[in-house]
Amino acid sequence: MTNLAVIGPGLLGGSIALAARRAGCFRVSAWARRAEAVAELSSGNFADFAATDLRAVAADADFVVLCVPIGIMPALAQQLAEIIPPHAIVTDVGSVKAPVVTELGPIFNGRGRFIGSHPMAGSEQAGLKAARANLFDGAVCIVTPDDAANASDVAAVYRFWEMLGCKVTRLSPEEHDDVVAEISHFPHLLAAVLVQSVEETNPAAFDFIGPGFRDMTRIAGGPPDMWMEILRVNRAAVKKSAEAMVEKLREVLTLLDCPSPGGDQLMNEFLSQAKVRRDSLRLSATQKAASSTKP
Amino acid sequence: MTNLAVIGPGLLGGSIALAARRAGCFRVSAWARRAEAVAELSSGNFADFAATDLRAVAADADFVVLCVPIGIMPALAQQLAEIIPPHAIVTDVGSVKAPVVTELGPIFNGRGRFIGSHPMAGSEQAGLKAARANLFDGAVCIVTPDDAANASDVAAVYRFWEMLGCKVTRLSPEEHDDVVAEISHFPHLLAAVLVQSVEETNPAAFDFIGPGFRDMTRIAGGPPDMWMEILRVNRAAVKKSAEAMVEKLREVLTLLDCPSPGGDQLMNEFLSQAKVRRDSLRLSATQKAASSTKP
Repeated sequence: MTNLAVIGPGLLGGSIALAARRAGCFRVSAWARRAEAVAELSSGNFADFAATDLRAVAADADFVVLCVPIGIMPALAQQLAEIIPPHAIVTDVGSVKAPVVTELGPIFNGRGRFIGSHPMAGSEQAGLKAARANLFDGAVCIVTPDDAANASDVAAVYRFWEMLGCKVTRLSPEEHDDVVAEISHFPHLLAAVLVQSVEETNPAAFDFIGPGFRDMTRIAGGPPDMWMEILRVNRAAVKKSAEAMVEKLREVLTLLDCPSPGGDQLMNEFLSQAKVRRDSLRLSATQKAASSTKP
Repeated sequence: MTNLAVIGPGLLGGSIALAARRAGCFRVSAWARRAEAVAELSSGNFADFAATDLRAVAADADFVVLCVPIGIMPALAQQLAEIIPPHAIVTDVGSVKAPVVTELGPIFNGRGRFIGSHPMAGSEQAGLKAARANLFDGAVCIVTPDDAANASDVAAVYRFWEMLGCKVTRLSPEEHDDVVAEISHFPHLLAAVLVQSVEETNPAAFDFIGPGFRDMTRIAGGPPDMWMEILRVNRAAVKKSAEAMVEKLREVLTLLDCPSPGGDQLMNEFLSQAKVRRDSLRLSATQKAASSTKP
């Protein structure tokens, strides 16, 4: 059995605990700051052991997963580094990787080994109540070792996420942050902006929304605290994505002013290219997140 | 029995025929331009009668629904006006209403009466194969009479859509076009722009998409011909929505440059407002489109 310590009991931490218990080869300990959360972990049968005492949870850990907000990771990592066995591998679930890897790598440095991860699962829901054992089935997990990581530790992190149901892949921390800005962080901001733009321009229009607008803005329902932190920490890449999108939008809007049939043809080509691209995504996403559910 | 003539057998026309047959109080005739489509209508049991001959389909119609692209409506309306009984009520399913109502109203003018409709159902799918009897269950249908319309005709159009399962509401043609630009036409363009912006900036990012990006861009899979026409016909309102969104986006992006904690607080407020708004939409949309399904 591998002693697994899950630090922080939200949607991801809770789901990791459940998925690890399902996998059957872990003894799962869970840490929460609040006694109420520990009680919830225990009564929900999330872990073999749950406590507010970090030492009791992590002292014999072989594998540690940090599932707390990025902003409090360094302080918690300092405490963990004093506690965990030197052989323990530490990973996290943060949505931004370069700053996390840069800060946490040196903190552990022989007092455990840190390798960053980003399991791309979850939804606009948050909290332990939304946790489920199949959250990671078919989801992509990006592992982001830095140059100091050794291959066997990286392989161990791969194996961990695979046992939880993920398809695992690898990017550098910087590549990761650019990629998720494009397909997650900026789109989240855009969904919120779209909602608030309608709110300010023509709120009566909300009475007429259909499934299209609803799906397009679903992620705007995510936890504001978490997203505020993500957007700030990854702001350079988010702003780059935003500028590229605005430029593309302006380019496409000018087609509406081109006289027909030339403008029509160009707009048709643009929409056709987007459709082909989107349809190809639908296939790959179906394969990758076959078991994901959403409200 | 009401003699219903459905003109044009796509997703909407086919679903109208099926929903009308389900309602049980219509004799359904369907017109298609191509013999192959007529064969499909007949073999799929969509209508009591199907033909390529407009006169055979519409000569005894009490109620006519135009389900063809906006661009070919005027020519078809000219033919229909020569054929249909003077008491016949004509409506359509076009996604833009002011230009349609302005053009078609005078064409019928006593040779049938025209009242515009926009049933807000459908998806990125198109074609008769995607048609289903429950497409309109719980969907909003906006009826857009002009000042010349008389109340009993408007009531008849209301009743028609209600019998097909819609929740019916009324806007002026101009109000309608502003509303749908905000919550449908511009979001469609935005979804396509988001896909193509990632395609041009960092196409490798597509390998990492999850349910959020997939849902946010789903409507970019819609039929390019149809959307090109909608965007062109409603371009003034679409551009107005786009400008409002870009302005809001720029305003929000500047929050990322504000020093913490002031900037964080403002961003948190913005995201919280968007979340509250979006969560309220989820409820109302669930009620309104309870039976809608999507791929």
